[in-house]
Amino acid sequence: MQDRMEQCRDAVQQCLNDALAPLGERPVEVAMRYALGGGKRLRAFLVMEGAQLHGIAPAQSVWAAAAIESIHAYSLVHDDLPCMDDDDVRRGQPTVHKRWDDATAVLVGDALQTLAFDLLTRPELGASSQIRVDLIASLAKSSGIGGMVLGQAQDIAAETAMIPLDLAAITELQANKTGALIEWSARAGAILGGADPTALGHYAKAVGLAFQIQDDILDVEGDAAKTGKAVGKDADAGKATFVSLLGLTGAKTRARDLVDEACAALSHYGTRADGLRDVARFVISRET
Amino acid sequence: MQDRMEQCRDAVQQCLNDALAPLGERPVEVAMRYALGGGKRLRAFLVMEGAQLHGIAPAQSVWAAAAIESIHAYSLVHDDLPCMDDDDVRRGQPTVHKRWDDATAVLVGDALQTLAFDLLTRPELGASSQIRVDLIASLAKSSGIGGMVLGQAQDIAAETAMIPLDLAAITELQANKTGALIEWSARAGAILGGADPTALGHYAKAVGLAFQIQDDILDVEGDAAKTGKAVGKDADAGKATFVSLLGLTGAKTRARDLVDEACAALSHYGTRADGLRDVARFVISRET
Repeated sequence: MQDRMEQCRDAVQQCLNDALAPLGERPVEVAMRYALGGGKRLRAFLVMEGAQLHGIAPAQSVWAAAAIESIHAYSLVHDDLPCMDDDDVRRGQPTVHKRWDDATAVLVGDALQTLAFDLLTRPELGASSQIRVDLIASLAKSSGIGGMVLGQAQDIAAETAMIPLDLAAITELQANKTGALIEWSARAGAILGGADPTALGHYAKAVGLAFQIQDDILDVEGDAAKTGKAVGKDADAGKATFVSLLGLTGAKTRARDLVDEACAALSHYGTRADGLRDVARFVISRET
Repeated sequence: MQDRMEQCRDAVQQCLNDALAPLGERPVEVAMRYALGGGKRLRAFLVMEGAQLHGIAPAQSVWAAAAIESIHAYSLVHDDLPCMDDDDVRRGQPTVHKRWDDATAVLVGDALQTLAFDLLTRPELGASSQIRVDLIASLAKSSGIGGMVLGQAQDIAAETAMIPLDLAAITELQANKTGALIEWSARAGAILGGADPTALGHYAKAVGLAFQIQDDILDVEGDAAKTGKAVGKDADAGKATFVSLLGLTGAKTRARDLVDEACAALSHYGTRADGLRDVARFVISRET
């Protein structure tokens, strides 16, 4: 699977480089390239593996993979701003507002969101106009006030209220904040292939929650040098996390159960979906 | 024309209310409604008048009109942030970051941008999938790093460098910062009707520049009570404007010439385009 993930990373980076080629060397343009570099490309991998299951070639699906990575990058740049999570380090590098300034970070995030929708209109995606419109509509739902932005607002509201969330509330928050984009990524391949995305959606719901539980575990057990971002932040802030609510052992058990659920949701695809099963296991074994 | 503009304002507000109806009462949701209220709705009017010229009913084109107003509102909310233009008053009301806070303003802008693309996917727009994709692709180009965001970056770079721009540079900056969205608005109606948008594009280029010249004139001559925002800001900041470069009389003459150009570009439509001609004249006679 490491090979396939690496191939996916290379293909997505190449696609993003092509998309950014017309840009110049103004700070905001340089910072866009910077913000789009690196990362695990987990969302891109979900898109491309799901697409392959439905007979869509990587040369096509990589454009949808690049789109979701562009949305993800925009959300990180804005989330790291001093008025939001105020993070100085991301993927082992200074965050955009530290390397440049807050105004550049606002504009870079804005432009990366726009770029994501732009990428879904590109002819290279090779899908019918109706499928593109479906992908664009579902990306808007997953990333906007019905999805990711709602999750971020719920996160800020919880911090402001200083009332720790219970398990149901934190599960809902995370389903919005990180789950919605992961779900879009897994479903995109089926949508591109004109197929029913329900099974991939179930898989992604479980993977998304496992991903967030592992994030909370890494915040406690992780190594800042490996994760490339600050650790212990949530515990220090007295924030409710899956670890504070379930305990470390309980959180690990729950994550493993979710990975089993995710793999089971793919039964209909047989062994062809082993790449997606591997990625579900990777999500809870990763150290970054 | 005042009647038609009022009808357009009502229709757009109704459409936005419908689109926002599923939202709750969290601060970010309340602030989205707040940011979408009021304004001249000039861009919406251009969309709906252009659409009517090509036989598209208001009940359809209003969705594209609402989309461009949502992009415009997002740009204002982010542009008003302390790290950007740092404005406290907009449309006669406290700006979003003053009324709520910076984090809410970042999220509101992000969600409004997403909403714009969402609105262009709605079935109520009634256009073919191919036409929707064309509108989405051109909106991404007009609002992203190839259009509005580039103009904002050029504006910030000019302020940081403290070197006043010359006429060619300020014209290019404004063509990006405000011109691109105005051009999209005017062209959208022809695209919706499957027609050639070139004439409407020429019209909009001239109107967009006249609009910005009038903004600079209002910054010198305007009444803060009427414009609903601070005046004299650019002159105080020693920024190059069309007024500083052309003089007040020269700027007024240039704006009038541009309006004549804009009206001439519509000759092929005959008197059916009188609404658009009126709006061009309105742009340089407005006090807000």
